[in-house]
Amino acid sequence: MPQDFEPLKSVTTAQMRAQIRACAYRGHTAGLGGKTLQANLAILPEALALDFMRFCQRNPKPCPLVGVSDTGNPMLTTLGADIDVRTDVPAYYVYRDGTLSETVHDLGALWRDDFVTFALGCSFTFEHALQEAGFDLWHIAQNTTVPMYASNIATVPAGPFQGPMVVSMRRIPNDRLDEVVAISRRFPLAHGGPVHMGDPAEIGIADLGRPDWGDPAPEAPGTTPVFWACGVTPQAAIMHARPEICITHKPGHMLITDIADDAETPIFTL
Amino acid sequence: MPQDFEPLKSVTTAQMRAQIRACAYRGHTAGLGGKTLQANLAILPEALALDFMRFCQRNPKPCPLVGVSDTGNPMLTTLGADIDVRTDVPAYYVYRDGTLSETVHDLGALWRDDFVTFALGCSFTFEHALQEAGFDLWHIAQNTTVPMYASNIATVPAGPFQGPMVVSMRRIPNDRLDEVVAISRRFPLAHGGPVHMGDPAEIGIADLGRPDWGDPAPEAPGTTPVFWACGVTPQAAIMHARPEICITHKPGHMLITDIADDAETPIFTL
Repeated sequence: MPQDFEPLKSVTTAQMRAQIRACAYRGHTAGLGGKTLQANLAILPEALALDFMRFCQRNPKPCPLVGVSDTGNPMLTTLGADIDVRTDVPAYYVYRDGTLSETVHDLGALWRDDFVTFALGCSFTFEHALQEAGFDLWHIAQNTTVPMYASNIATVPAGPFQGPMVVSMRRIPNDRLDEVVAISRRFPLAHGGPVHMGDPAEIGIADLGRPDWGDPAPEAPGTTPVFWACGVTPQAAIMHARPEICITHKPGHMLITDIADDAETPIFTL
Repeated sequence: MPQDFEPLKSVTTAQMRAQIRACAYRGHTAGLGGKTLQANLAILPEALALDFMRFCQRNPKPCPLVGVSDTGNPMLTTLGADIDVRTDVPAYYVYRDGTLSETVHDLGALWRDDFVTFALGCSFTFEHALQEAGFDLWHIAQNTTVPMYASNIATVPAGPFQGPMVVSMRRIPNDRLDEVVAISRRFPLAHGGPVHMGDPAEIGIADLGRPDWGDPAPEAPGTTPVFWACGVTPQAAIMHARPEICITHKPGHMLITDIADDAETPIFTL
């Protein structure tokens, strides 16, 4: 057993990526790909890659690194069979000098020989596990976006990358808090355990009803707000660093990998 | 709770590093530092740093990255208070062009402004947990070095870094194999779960009695050989890459950090 996990049936995820590659599907990826890891993307020039990789290493909860490409190579060989980051994501955001510039569905015209692709774990993984354990997640039931907030928890800087940790919030029944901590800690590659529970003011959030990103979730009796590190954090750090160019997935429009979401390591083997 | 772990009492580890820094202690660090993470070191010129970091990301079991310095900065700020990698390790190996050149106790004369330090988790962490669970580890009881072998499991290459996965072997009672897997999987920053159990020939090891590094451990009735990815792997990859210069810890002579060995993330906060 050189690696002690089995990739899920690759037919499903490969077929899904083929549809996306052919631009036959351009929607969000929530609920797609079965029990495989989905990933946030950040594509940067190599001159910034070492600093960005250090930023991810130093901030493993918001930025759980699951894959890094060779410089100039659009294939993410460690995350699955035939994954081409130029075509296999339904929609991309292009940032120029730290500002969102355009939304595209193919990177063919933008690709550069000095690009390095970073894939980061996302919350779909632990949300799936919470649902399997019988937790009702309001934003999923309502088909809205989880509420996200810029907290006063600082990330650990690396080179030009720095900024606040962005957190997502889910309301959890008071008698199941220990359980939700234990479940989410099992997924260190998908933000791991919560970074805060309870009073939002303690982490600099003035009003839960006014999230910085996503949709507000109403108060619910007998629940506690629970906060997780969020994949928007690296995008905020990238906007602070103002790289000449950076490409990310469009939020919610993830890369579907061939890695089982409960794999011990995110390394694909045939 | 911005980070959900508490550094252990820093007095102990800081005092230990002060002794090492003063060259009052130059021995191995097994059993020192209490329940804190100890780390393997690799110090490389920045020109190789991105490739080496990719090598670690792609081979997380043999190369669990727990810290990376800023370029030219000898302080490992994310692993503890006042950790200076030039002085705080009892003994260092200096490799030139991939060959062991000298053993030193201080890097003051060798330090360069383009050096990047990588700290990698080590097996002391899960061995400590196994001992607490009542496992007898022969090499510790006999005060010998765990037997290590070059396996036929290939690492995932990155730039010039490649080579076989080196594995360490411990004999575990047949009726406790599931338990040893479960315990060691709890420590992804210390090699995680085993990579193989049983017949050594399946991973290319011809004779357990003749390890490539360390001391042989005798057969024991009712036990199975269990193999873990080993921290010698990156040293083998570095020797393959033949960098002009690379500095590592001397095996067994680790960096003692201020990170609790069961911390969810290896990030030091005051």
